[in-house]
Amino acid sequence: MTKLSHVDTTGKAKMVDVGSKDITRREAVASVVVLLNEAAYHATKENTSKKGDVLTVAKLAGIQAAKKTSELIPLCHQIALDNVDIEFTPDATKYTITITATVVCSARTGVEMEALTACSVAALTVYDMLKAIQKDIVITDLKLLKKKGGVSGEFTRTDT
Amino acid sequence: MTKLSHVDTTGKAKMVDVGSKDITRREAVASVVVLLNEAAYHATKENTSKKGDVLTVAKLAGIQAAKKTSELIPLCHQIALDNVDIEFTPDATKYTITITATVVCSARTGVEMEALTACSVAALTVYDMLKAIQKDIVITDLKLLKKKGGVSGEFTRTDT
Amino acid sequence: MTKLSHVDTTGKAKMVDVGSKDITRREAVASVVVLLNEAAYHATKENTSKKGDVLTVAKLAGIQAAKKTSELIPLCHQIALDNVDIEFTPDATKYTITITATVVCSARTGVEMEALTACSVAALTVYDMLKAIQKDIVITDLKLLKKKGGVSGEFTRTDT
Amino acid sequence: MTKLSHVDTTGKAKMVDVGSKDITRREAVASVVVLLNEAAYHATKENTSKKGDVLTVAKLAGIQAAKKTSELIPLCHQIALDNVDIEFTPDATKYTITITATVVCSARTGVEMEALTACSVAALTVYDMLKAIQKDIVITDLKLLKKKGGVSGEFTRTDT
Amino acid sequence: MTKLSHVDTTGKAKMVDVGSKDITRREAVASVVVLLNEAAYHATKENTSKKGDVLTVAKLAGIQAAKKTSELIPLCHQIALDNVDIEFTPDATKYTITITATVVCSARTGVEMEALTACSVAALTVYDMLKAIQKDIVITDLKLLKKKGGVSGEFTRTDT
Amino acid sequence: MTKLSHVDTTGKAKMVDVGSKDITRREAVASVVVLLNEAAYHATKENTSKKGDVLTVAKLAGIQAAKKTSELIPLCHQIALDNVDIEFTPDATKYTITITATVVCSARTGVEMEALTACSVAALTVYDMLKAIQKDIVITDLKLLKKKGGVSGEFTRTDT
Repeated sequence: MTKLSHVDTTGKAKMVDVGSKDITRREAVASVVVLLNEAAYHATKENTSKKGDVLTVAKLAGIQAAKKTSELIPLCHQIALDNVDIEFTPDATKYTITITATVVCSARTGVEMEALTACSVAALTVYDMLKAIQKDIVITDLKLLKKKGGVSGEFTRTDT
Repeated sequence: MTKLSHVDTTGKAKMVDVGSKDITRREAVASVVVLLNEAAYHATKENTSKKGDVLTVAKLAGIQAAKKTSELIPLCHQIALDNVDIEFTPDATKYTITITATVVCSARTGVEMEALTACSVAALTVYDMLKAIQKDIVITDLKLLKKKGGVSGEFTRTDT
Repeated sequence: MTKLSHVDTTGKAKMVDVGSKDITRREAVASVVVLLNEAAYHATKENTSKKGDVLTVAKLAGIQAAKKTSELIPLCHQIALDNVDIEFTPDATKYTITITATVVCSARTGVEMEALTACSVAALTVYDMLKAIQKDIVITDLKLLKKKGGVSGEFTRTDT
Repeated sequence: MTKLSHVDTTGKAKMVDVGSKDITRREAVASVVVLLNEAAYHATKENTSKKGDVLTVAKLAGIQAAKKTSELIPLCHQIALDNVDIEFTPDATKYTITITATVVCSARTGVEMEALTACSVAALTVYDMLKAIQKDIVITDLKLLKKKGGVSGEFTRTDT
Repeated sequence: MTKLSHVDTTGKAKMVDVGSKDITRREAVASVVVLLNEAAYHATKENTSKKGDVLTVAKLAGIQAAKKTSELIPLCHQIALDNVDIEFTPDATKYTITITATVVCSARTGVEMEALTACSVAALTVYDMLKAIQKDIVITDLKLLKKKGGVSGEFTRTDT
Repeated sequence: MTKLSHVDTTGKAKMVDVGSKDITRREAVASVVVLLNEAAYHATKENTSKKGDVLTVAKLAGIQAAKKTSELIPLCHQIALDNVDIEFTPDATKYTITITATVVCSARTGVEMEALTACSVAALTVYDMLKAIQKDIVITDLKLLKKKGGVSGEFTRTDT
């Protein structure tokens, strides 16, 4: 029988006690796609090629959000992160920017929510920087790509 | 010529001075879709029908995140929100949950980033509650549906 | 028929839209009592008479907590406070310290939760400062004493 | 001679260096009582029996506050919590709701302030949800029930 | 007789009630100087000329810190800022970077602490980015340059 | 060739992965000087000699800021601090107050930014408490005095 995380047998919210889990090196990778129109895409590319700040602001926002995950997701544990890395991959044919976040820690529980949160907030920040050009930006396809280091074994998404 | 928000003429990050804008009632509506598999969808529905907490945790996380938007998105202004409302619409044929956030304020600048942030964090929280059942949940199609109350006039997305 | 705050007709959590309420000067006064044993009471009195920091730390914690109320209580609105004042009244016959917090704002909604939060966190801080002396301190009788400035009229507690 | 925590020999505030203490599993249990009138009590019970959100909002607020304890209590150390559990026990004869919080960690210092903070903020949130029905709710009897795992040995309150 | 801010007649901490002050446009400008050695100065210049991120990270940190001032300085009021602008002026003869922050708001109290906080945190971030090159960086000469918009009239520093 | 911290080879911002570093006891000491005029200096001394709160508020602000360093400096890691100690040394001949902060942790990376942040925010708070007396206070000479516990060996500033 399948079971929800973070709820008890009656369906009510509860944290998971991670005290008996081992401290291990854990890593998670997530990605998200920002769909732009031609004008917004080129403005971003031009800003980036001129070494403007659009993607830097988004990267910093993503890194800082990863550190705040346990404040944002109510039942997440506080985890001191070893590293957060965020990369941006533009696609000139589709006018998209793919954001990939890699988060690592040495802790009792994994960091997939941290990687997903970093992607989300980085994407929201790209949106915020571009919204004067394009009002109908879409942020899509936020997903976990890889996760390793816990007892549940390694997970690698196969359909990406 | 198109122009980025939040950057100066050299492409560097900068806030926008909203001091000369009027305090008006402003509203924004955004939505996002959480794509589940059958097991996760039914677990959510069962939890909801038993009045479990899954969607309540997500709603509260979204409301609290909306209030924190200016901490998360670096160049956003601090706005005291009048209201944040979040709704969940399940679709049993597609195994999806659509989350819609409506944010209103009486301020000098709009709340689209607040509505989008509320959707993002509510969706991340649904993910967090369901990740023990399904490891490959996808959060998709985050977008602004409507915005009104500012000088730029009303925006309503037409392709939803 | 009586009605809960912050829930809709089905009993689910929701914020209250304060957008149509007037901005008025609003004030709330709350108090709480910290019950000490003789040793802890005298240590506090001695610290205070030597102008030590015990009650100052508690006062500052209370002031700062009042400013954070909307982060702590999920459905509270963000309110920029005009003032927070906290007073300590020791009672040498009962070994108690009564903490009274007065909070004022110019806003669309009242500050009773801010006054109660200031009292709570000030009392918790007194506890934290004294816990090496007394392990069984009790914090009791947290209540609203007075509230004014909103449409619901003035409230003054009569049984204090 | 009794000694205050968190003050130096002149009575001035100071943190305690926990660097030489061992990392051990530590647990603390605290409770608090919310005194309601009949109407507020029954509204809460009715909300709970309909699986409404009143106590869920309070539980989440308590869990999140426990994680924020070191931000609220100035001299507390930052502790990554293994678990926070919060339970609500209504008493239909006295119209009370007792809130019990259990906090565990693997750290160099204990979590009694975290358990007390979780109780306080959960109780404040119950107050916030019920204040439209009853203006004179009292939050009372906040105390530590049990503490174990540190060098000072186990503490169990005997008068509860 | 001169008087401290934020203390009562007995010298104890207290907030100032700003409720009777008018909401006016207020502005403050502050600056700080980061003293580098030749290697650190040139690394910064080279990073900037290649449009690297060193000063962008510092600018964003300063802007975000300005918004957090009331969390950092215990007796400061919460102020929703209209704008925060931060500029960096390198001096190749002295190997210094001067950081200037301009903060504006429409509020009941001024923003000099916000401008000073923005400068401080921007300077700390420059330090953090350069500390691998130079271990003895000094941050110096943090001061208010100008302040206007309050009842106390305009202040302009004359010795800069 | 000298290298910036926190940037990659192209000059873009990045965190440093500390996962492979050992957990060791690390300590950092920093100081800063607040330059007052005679009136402000004597008001502070008088407040201190009467055991007023000016320097206590500054001390608490510094301790709390040290705990928030990773929120303020974007690329800093979250570190649970073992202790933060802050001292004030007045100099009656120069009308200065020197603030010294000592921070210790048991972690994978050092706490120099925490010590510098504690000094900065303590100094800003002294400024805030004294700004009604003196509008042209200067905060100067913020620097690291000592650092030990990491692989890079002990650093002691020699020119202080």
